[in-house]
Amino acid sequence: MGQRNQTISDLVVANHILAMEGILDGFGHVSIRDPQRPDCYLMSRSLAPALVTESDIVQHDLDNNAVLTTDREKKLYYERWIHGEVYKARPEVNAVVHSHSPTVVPFASTNAPLRPLLHNASFLGFGAPVFEIRDHVAHSDLMISTAELGKAMAATLGSAADVVLLRGHGNVVVGPTIQIAVFRAYYTEINARQQLQAMTIGGDSVVYMDAGECETTDKIMRSVAGRPWDLWKAKVAASRA
Amino acid sequence: MGQRNQTISDLVVANHILAMEGILDGFGHVSIRDPQRPDCYLMSRSLAPALVTESDIVQHDLDNNAVLTTDREKKLYYERWIHGEVYKARPEVNAVVHSHSPTVVPFASTNAPLRPLLHNASFLGFGAPVFEIRDHVAHSDLMISTAELGKAMAATLGSAADVVLLRGHGNVVVGPTIQIAVFRAYYTEINARQQLQAMTIGGDSVVYMDAGECETTDKIMRSVAGRPWDLWKAKVAASRA
Amino acid sequence: MGQRNQTISDLVVANHILAMEGILDGFGHVSIRDPQRPDCYLMSRSLAPALVTESDIVQHDLDNNAVLTTDREKKLYYERWIHGEVYKARPEVNAVVHSHSPTVVPFASTNAPLRPLLHNASFLGFGAPVFEIRDHVAHSDLMISTAELGKAMAATLGSAADVVLLRGHGNVVVGPTIQIAVFRAYYTEINARQQLQAMTIGGDSVVYMDAGECETTDKIMRSVAGRPWDLWKAKVAASRA
Amino acid sequence: MGQRNQTISDLVVANHILAMEGILDGFGHVSIRDPQRPDCYLMSRSLAPALVTESDIVQHDLDNNAVLTTDREKKLYYERWIHGEVYKARPEVNAVVHSHSPTVVPFASTNAPLRPLLHNASFLGFGAPVFEIRDHVAHSDLMISTAELGKAMAATLGSAADVVLLRGHGNVVVGPTIQIAVFRAYYTEINARQQLQAMTIGGDSVVYMDAGECETTDKIMRSVAGRPWDLWKAKVAASRA
Repeated sequence: MGQRNQTISDLVVANHILAMEGILDGFGHVSIRDPQRPDCYLMSRSLAPALVTESDIVQHDLDNNAVLTTDREKKLYYERWIHGEVYKARPEVNAVVHSHSPTVVPFASTNAPLRPLLHNASFLGFGAPVFEIRDHVAHSDLMISTAELGKAMAATLGSAADVVLLRGHGNVVVGPTIQIAVFRAYYTEINARQQLQAMTIGGDSVVYMDAGECETTDKIMRSVAGRPWDLWKAKVAASRA
Repeated sequence: MGQRNQTISDLVVANHILAMEGILDGFGHVSIRDPQRPDCYLMSRSLAPALVTESDIVQHDLDNNAVLTTDREKKLYYERWIHGEVYKARPEVNAVVHSHSPTVVPFASTNAPLRPLLHNASFLGFGAPVFEIRDHVAHSDLMISTAELGKAMAATLGSAADVVLLRGHGNVVVGPTIQIAVFRAYYTEINARQQLQAMTIGGDSVVYMDAGECETTDKIMRSVAGRPWDLWKAKVAASRA
Repeated sequence: MGQRNQTISDLVVANHILAMEGILDGFGHVSIRDPQRPDCYLMSRSLAPALVTESDIVQHDLDNNAVLTTDREKKLYYERWIHGEVYKARPEVNAVVHSHSPTVVPFASTNAPLRPLLHNASFLGFGAPVFEIRDHVAHSDLMISTAELGKAMAATLGSAADVVLLRGHGNVVVGPTIQIAVFRAYYTEINARQQLQAMTIGGDSVVYMDAGECETTDKIMRSVAGRPWDLWKAKVAASRA
Repeated sequence: MGQRNQTISDLVVANHILAMEGILDGFGHVSIRDPQRPDCYLMSRSLAPALVTESDIVQHDLDNNAVLTTDREKKLYYERWIHGEVYKARPEVNAVVHSHSPTVVPFASTNAPLRPLLHNASFLGFGAPVFEIRDHVAHSDLMISTAELGKAMAATLGSAADVVLLRGHGNVVVGPTIQIAVFRAYYTEINARQQLQAMTIGGDSVVYMDAGECETTDKIMRSVAGRPWDLWKAKVAASRA
């Protein structure tokens, strides 16, 4: 398989993994920066992630337009601005997941900060800020549906964090590879569940990872993100056989 | 497929979707206003939703009797009064879901109001009143088993809300189409889960959608309700293949 | 199918339903009073419920011994005393379920009484006492492994309740038919989940069913217990095809 | 099947059971002390547990090196030190499970001690200490990746406990047989869920098993650990058919 075919295949698998694991439902989307053209990214046309196939993948420029003439008729995701603005602001990012990950929404809608509890979620130690759309536009539909909102959201994400929470809506997770971005999207949800439970039983006694632990651990986690990916990929294949 | 066949097919699919997603268990029911006769509605005979087939669909008049002579012997749902009275009171409503959606019951049985937390559930901003049957009849079986109770419940629903909670029992969700009613029934449950979690971690700091956000967002959500419907329909088909 | 064959078939199905729905795990057991000999009951030999087949069913007398010579070599359930003593004490009971139903255990191990929140669980209004084995024997294994403990547990159940909780262990649910006992075992678990959630969001504001509501509702629920039974039976058959 | 083949077959099944039941995800590992050479143990090469097959099993010495020349090229688990040090310190232990069991992590990261609530988890009465890696090394990746950390963790486990919790990470469960270790790993998770729920509804009123009950009950549970094993093994086989 050529590099491009591998990238598109990985992108389809990422959609199916995140749907199978309940991180994405009928909504949400995943993109990869185009390895041949870093000023473009690859993402499905507007479609439920579980239904995405290779022929649905559209090359977008960083202003979120379809590059190819043959794709111009296709309906694109309403919130694709998330992707273009993150790729502009963060050159080291090569994959972006936008989800409504169920247990992350409660953290997006309260003053309880999402913090790194589980070693797999050490990247949360670099920040998990909340984007409050109401600070930018009144009476909105809460969605990132313009370039301005995309830029504001990317500014809240900042240069260090790998996750930004969207109040009343969901979250955006980034990574240097699609495997790492999927790993992080999954463990953001797992950490949220475990943190909620820890707060329930432990109140103020919850012990979070400290900054040094997060830095050390994130390096290891990046290096092992391929292991659950291989497992999830095999499960996806089995469920579709 | 003719319009009537399409309506009946959609109604069967709606039953199967809501059972598959855990919104309906062995009980609950779904109806569509008859597109050819707005003074009638279509709903299964008394049967667990997962088992409903096209031949089980019965045309009911708004007094909840079977219209066709050939259907007169069939056992009808004990709580079909819910449907007739809502269709009488709300001409713009074309679909009704009655469920025992698991996480909504706790909100029906406490003073904690169900409020719009997640953008998909923006319709909750138009109200989610609780119907307390004890205010109408003592020592009841909590079910809407008479025209009087149907009318009282429809009065609690009122002219603006799309959801009414039934204390100790479940809820009723309405929509202009079956796709939107199913979408709302599903996201009422999801919002309830996320609100419960937000209240657990956030106490009084929970941020709900405001009235303007709800109005803007509900318009969008109506327009995209077909996307999860297509996904759920494909999943139902795969699970029955 | 003759009456006896039907009874044994129903008993096997009940085992599989309760395992499929997560009420029973590798432990727990279900029995039916022998319709031809009310001083006997039918129950599997000692086996995980999901694995029970018709050839595993053993006729027990009310002292919990195998009646047939050919069954005398079989290993019987360690806690079969539950069944014999309940059938002795409660002539109107024709089916008994002993489970470790997951969300009922927390109610068995705290001072929070399990109370009827959901109409399907109206039978909880007739009582859900907790059996504290420590009041009868010190340093026990918490199990009902003697006639004396069976009698003490049956005395705690009393003449009115349909459920008794066993501290640190599980619960016992009874009914006039196997369909009603399975219905009650299932909705005991569902009510426990919803009550836990209602207590979390509602504190002291939780509204439970009152005595009159429970009496009225239980009559209806007995009459409709066949509907989820038919659904569950179809699901069990599909999962084993 | 010879004894060695049976051991390896059991080890593969244990991996698949714990993955199927959600105790292990893409990470974690299971080992058995080599029945022919007690100074060695058998464990998969570094691989997601659900994907382990018989050909992946590697004989390790107690310093956690592959014994056979033909295995020297294989990548081994990063945290295999857990196994070697436990087998050195606890001669009666013949099986070790390391998992990130989801509901145990919150207990590892708060001052709420995991205590025996459910009779199946009576072994928790012998202790469930928390290993705080920060007391041994600063800025770590929280993993047991050296002999020193393995020894320190084994010292926290001590001579009596069958479970040690790892802060921010997971837990380690031991047993005299693989069936008992798998049973304990499963019921550690179940007990954690039920204890969390009991603390939610019962606050300080939660009744735990006392020391005498734990001692009596653990003996029984060891003797019946084969029953859920047989059930889980059948479920694994069915899911892979």
